[in-house]
Amino acid sequence: MLDALPSVQARVQGALDQAIDALPPGDLTDAMRYAVSGGKRLRALLVMESARLHGVSEAAALPVAAAVEALHAYSLVHDDLPAMDDDDLRRGLPTVHIKWGEATAILAGDALQTLAFELLTDSIIGDEAARLRLVAALARASGAAGMVWGQALDIAAETALEPLDLQAITRLQGGKTGALIRFAATAGARIAGDDPAALDQYASAVGLAFQIADDVLDVTGDEARTGKRVGKDEGAGKATFVSLLGLDGAREAARQHVAEAEAALEGYGPAAGNLRALARFVIERDT
Amino acid sequence: MLDALPSVQARVQGALDQAIDALPPGDLTDAMRYAVSGGKRLRALLVMESARLHGVSEAAALPVAAAVEALHAYSLVHDDLPAMDDDDLRRGLPTVHIKWGEATAILAGDALQTLAFELLTDSIIGDEAARLRLVAALARASGAAGMVWGQALDIAAETALEPLDLQAITRLQGGKTGALIRFAATAGARIAGDDPAALDQYASAVGLAFQIADDVLDVTGDEARTGKRVGKDEGAGKATFVSLLGLDGAREAARQHVAEAEAALEGYGPAAGNLRALARFVIERDT
Repeated sequence: MLDALPSVQARVQGALDQAIDALPPGDLTDAMRYAVSGGKRLRALLVMESARLHGVSEAAALPVAAAVEALHAYSLVHDDLPAMDDDDLRRGLPTVHIKWGEATAILAGDALQTLAFELLTDSIIGDEAARLRLVAALARASGAAGMVWGQALDIAAETALEPLDLQAITRLQGGKTGALIRFAATAGARIAGDDPAALDQYASAVGLAFQIADDVLDVTGDEARTGKRVGKDEGAGKATFVSLLGLDGAREAARQHVAEAEAALEGYGPAAGNLRALARFVIERDT
Repeated sequence: MLDALPSVQARVQGALDQAIDALPPGDLTDAMRYAVSGGKRLRALLVMESARLHGVSEAAALPVAAAVEALHAYSLVHDDLPAMDDDDLRRGLPTVHIKWGEATAILAGDALQTLAFELLTDSIIGDEAARLRLVAALARASGAAGMVWGQALDIAAETALEPLDLQAITRLQGGKTGALIRFAATAGARIAGDDPAALDQYASAVGLAFQIADDVLDVTGDEARTGKRVGKDEGAGKATFVSLLGLDGAREAARQHVAEAEAALEGYGPAAGNLRALARFVIERDT
């Protein structure tokens, strides 16, 4: 269904390996390389497809796709730390702090964030104005008004007296996972200097569908397939889309968001087939 | 001696507060605000003075000075974490993780790094090319080939069988503290599109003098004045410039580096008086 994915996976892995190989060798860069290995690369696919729709070449979009995946990898390395979600397993393998210790995991995450911004300065992407638009948009999406803000709300929710309601969870996820997905899906329009509004609408809906599907997988998923611990949310007494809507209600909400996402792409016509397929994939996947 | 410092301190604090006040309120932004409060602001002064020497206005340089201090603050918050240097005191106050917990400290550091890059996109700094030069240079200076690389070497040295020698410590500090100091001192030339070579030479020497003075202060300093624990290096059996050169040898080496730094500024004439004074200050300070 997502025919374009394997080729994007290979190219973005190549770009990330090349960037990390250019750094001084050692535990730090080994941990960085490990952290950016594997993963579904859905965010990279969003970058590449939005670029194609806006007439931006693959070569120009590739460093941006790599930047998004580096940023995402940093957030996972820090989220997995004992002081945060305390996860020992990610993509079926020991997490970075299990393998290299906490200090190196903190530093590897830090340096992956830096690398993401450095990748956006690559002159192949476009003129200075285009690259600077990306830097500004990624900073807004990933910082204390975006991804990190959502993560901080998530941490606060763990010790809150009352579980979050649907509105609060939707807001939280709009930061924690939504902001970076929106950056990825609008990147092509930003490089081209076009209006990113339709892609942003698409991405907001896809982001929510993605998170709802994650909550469903945490209940129904198979550890061997997902490569991460399942049943964690329920064990922690955390409010999720499933605890608030029930399993069937959550699945129905995810389907609705996918329909909204597909509708947002109308103006792009058949060219947006891969983005439509991706929207359906996020709720059909089993990993 | 450093007459320009109090005014720089006030302006950069104002810029940082304004940037953080624009973010969603909560523990995360409280911790960020706390982390960027106080400090000597020597890096900010380097930015402002290098800007003045290259005809860049104070208004244009201010977001860059704020970015450098945000980046520096992030590195301190993460360095102080239990998994890293495990410090409970900074600038005479409890460190961020003591006050808000480790999770918030990790996230506040993360978001301060993001904020640093966001500040560099401010259009008041200059044209897109100038801002992009700064983004690229800050990423190189602070990432896995610069500051974080030096920090990783420092962590590795703690468990190494042999203490580091002078060459290894000089290299390590060139990353850990030197890279950001060099970015700060060359920022004015980078904004203007001028050759940063002389300022870079100045900053390399100042950076080393600064670190040697830090090692001296760790032995001779007063906790009440420095606002941080002293005697930590010796207690940890860590090689320092003092353990390798002796107290008098370290002081002499610092003086030599200050002389090199002053010599590098020759081409700027009397206009570089503040930078010369700053070079002397880094070895004369008692905090």
